[in-house]
Amino acid sequence: MSRIRTHNLCFLGFGNVGRALVRLLESKKRELRECYGIRWRITGVATRRIGWTADARGLRPDGLLKDVFISSEGQQRGKRLPGKSRNIREWLRAARADVLFETTPLNRHDGQPAVAHIRAALESGAHAITANKGTIVFAYEELARLARRKGKRFLFESTVMDGAPIFSLFRESLPATELRAFRGILNSTSNLVLSQIEAGLSLEEAVIKAQELGIAEAEPSDDLDGWDAAVKVAALSAVLWGIPLKLDKISRSGIRALDPAVIRAARADGRPYKLVCSARRVGKRVKASVKLQQVDPSDPLAAVDGTSSCVEFRMDALPSLTVTERDPGIETTAYGMLADFIRAVRES
Amino acid sequence: MSRIRTHNLCFLGFGNVGRALVRLLESKKRELRECYGIRWRITGVATRRIGWTADARGLRPDGLLKDVFISSEGQQRGKRLPGKSRNIREWLRAARADVLFETTPLNRHDGQPAVAHIRAALESGAHAITANKGTIVFAYEELARLARRKGKRFLFESTVMDGAPIFSLFRESLPATELRAFRGILNSTSNLVLSQIEAGLSLEEAVIKAQELGIAEAEPSDDLDGWDAAVKVAALSAVLWGIPLKLDKISRSGIRALDPAVIRAARADGRPYKLVCSARRVGKRVKASVKLQQVDPSDPLAAVDGTSSCVEFRMDALPSLTVTERDPGIETTAYGMLADFIRAVRES
Repeated sequence: MSRIRTHNLCFLGFGNVGRALVRLLESKKRELRECYGIRWRITGVATRRIGWTADARGLRPDGLLKDVFISSEGQQRGKRLPGKSRNIREWLRAARADVLFETTPLNRHDGQPAVAHIRAALESGAHAITANKGTIVFAYEELARLARRKGKRFLFESTVMDGAPIFSLFRESLPATELRAFRGILNSTSNLVLSQIEAGLSLEEAVIKAQELGIAEAEPSDDLDGWDAAVKVAALSAVLWGIPLKLDKISRSGIRALDPAVIRAARADGRPYKLVCSARRVGKRVKASVKLQQVDPSDPLAAVDGTSSCVEFRMDALPSLTVTERDPGIETTAYGMLADFIRAVRES
Repeated sequence: MSRIRTHNLCFLGFGNVGRALVRLLESKKRELRECYGIRWRITGVATRRIGWTADARGLRPDGLLKDVFISSEGQQRGKRLPGKSRNIREWLRAARADVLFETTPLNRHDGQPAVAHIRAALESGAHAITANKGTIVFAYEELARLARRKGKRFLFESTVMDGAPIFSLFRESLPATELRAFRGILNSTSNLVLSQIEAGLSLEEAVIKAQELGIAEAEPSDDLDGWDAAVKVAALSAVLWGIPLKLDKISRSGIRALDPAVIRAARADGRPYKLVCSARRVGKRVKASVKLQQVDPSDPLAAVDGTSSCVEFRMDALPSLTVTERDPGIETTAYGMLADFIRAVRES
């Protein structure tokens, strides 16, 4: 067993994923210490609402989950507000950050400000772990290079298929393979909406249902129009092939075009419509698309319903390997970040 | 990039898998050298027919594939028969083995002589890589401990689902997860035979077809009666839970019991019969079975046909993660051993 070390964790963005991660860190506390030599304390939390909050002695996790910011020592000394910084660099320094967990929302136009956050974290000497796909789509090469130069890790397992191991599978478990193509269902919201339409709802009703379930956002266009799926295709291409794709170069259709009756008839016929992501390497280029299309009953994609997702990889040595994740929750995304955290501090 | 090192490889058993591995090593030669700092030469081959053949200067791979055993220097010096040893220890020494690839057939009663082979290899200071499930089912704990003590690796990715990453997925990509249960289709022969029966063949015809395709063995009882599947369940339990299972404690049915008409009717009804492996952890024990049963159309197992296989893992943080491998070939099994080889020499 390695020596036990305490890591200072900072959360940039503190919504459902960040909170689920704090709960997961708490519930895995003993296992992290005993099996991985990892202790942790939360020394920084930053959101638009509360600003750049930091306390290098640690904030109380139970307080954070109730939006109460108390130092770990607060219990003895009485409530004490942690320090406020003016910007991310000052904040990382005040928090003595070892690891940044970045969970701000996606900006599909230039990936900002998440890219700047990751850059600042790596430059400050912290590992950077993100659930934000924009950082990979717009700056993978740059951030990966910066991480190498700093001897830190830039990890992002939770950006595609929640926390299911996709990037780590290739990084760690599939050496010396040549990836030729991939194909999958990568957007939960549109897949859930299709399943609901098949069950008899109208598009509008299905969207409301997905919102009630906490899956679809208030403004779900990015999901319904295939943008989110396209961003994931671009993220996979950037990392697995080292080939960045421009989003508007990915041929793309959403799920709004078809009449619900057509979608239901296809399902009844056993050949359901799915929003299929695909990408194929052709020489030094990648041909990619996001398309609403019918799939055969024997196609593994046919059985991927609701919020489930999957991706099939075609490689030289392994002709077809598919990873399917069923019924993920917010905990699954949090798990991807936890796994990245363990990876980062174990290997550095 | 790490320094380039040459590794002496020994093959114990040299059938289809061993030969496919030699071809794969040849085709990946440049990538292994440039990306992983790995050079290799084959210094030992042993089979029942040819005995313990070794030459520490290396045997010519092209010759081996034609059953001609010539030293690497043979071209210049004329054909020269490599040395013969009397037993595995002498052979490993004569070959100066760094890595043993073990591909002898399964003995489902006590795992021998494969267990003894792996033990000898590790004791001699070589990494041991096997495609033989018996070694895990009967001696996982002992061999893993011996490997740790010797600072070598005992790896076995090709024992379950050909070369698809299952063990390495858990070892490397799923830290801090609690595996609660798994379920899958793990025997290609019986799955192919079921698919052929569904397509109209009788059991006997389906078996002959599977034999013609090179999938089923001359004596296919172990596959048809669920023994091979049970061995795989026991292998997964031993490694992923550290709990060895006695094969006769796994409740087991084969695929011969049902009338082909019943199998065809179930498929027509959309609820095909599958030989389903399952295991669930209950406290410190494991409840496991191999059962011919109908699966729902929405069940991912329903779409796993022919020689394809799959396994679904249920974990605390990831409620359901399924790995599916479609249309594997002998190259896939060879790939699993290649990946283990890279892992072993990279990490040691």
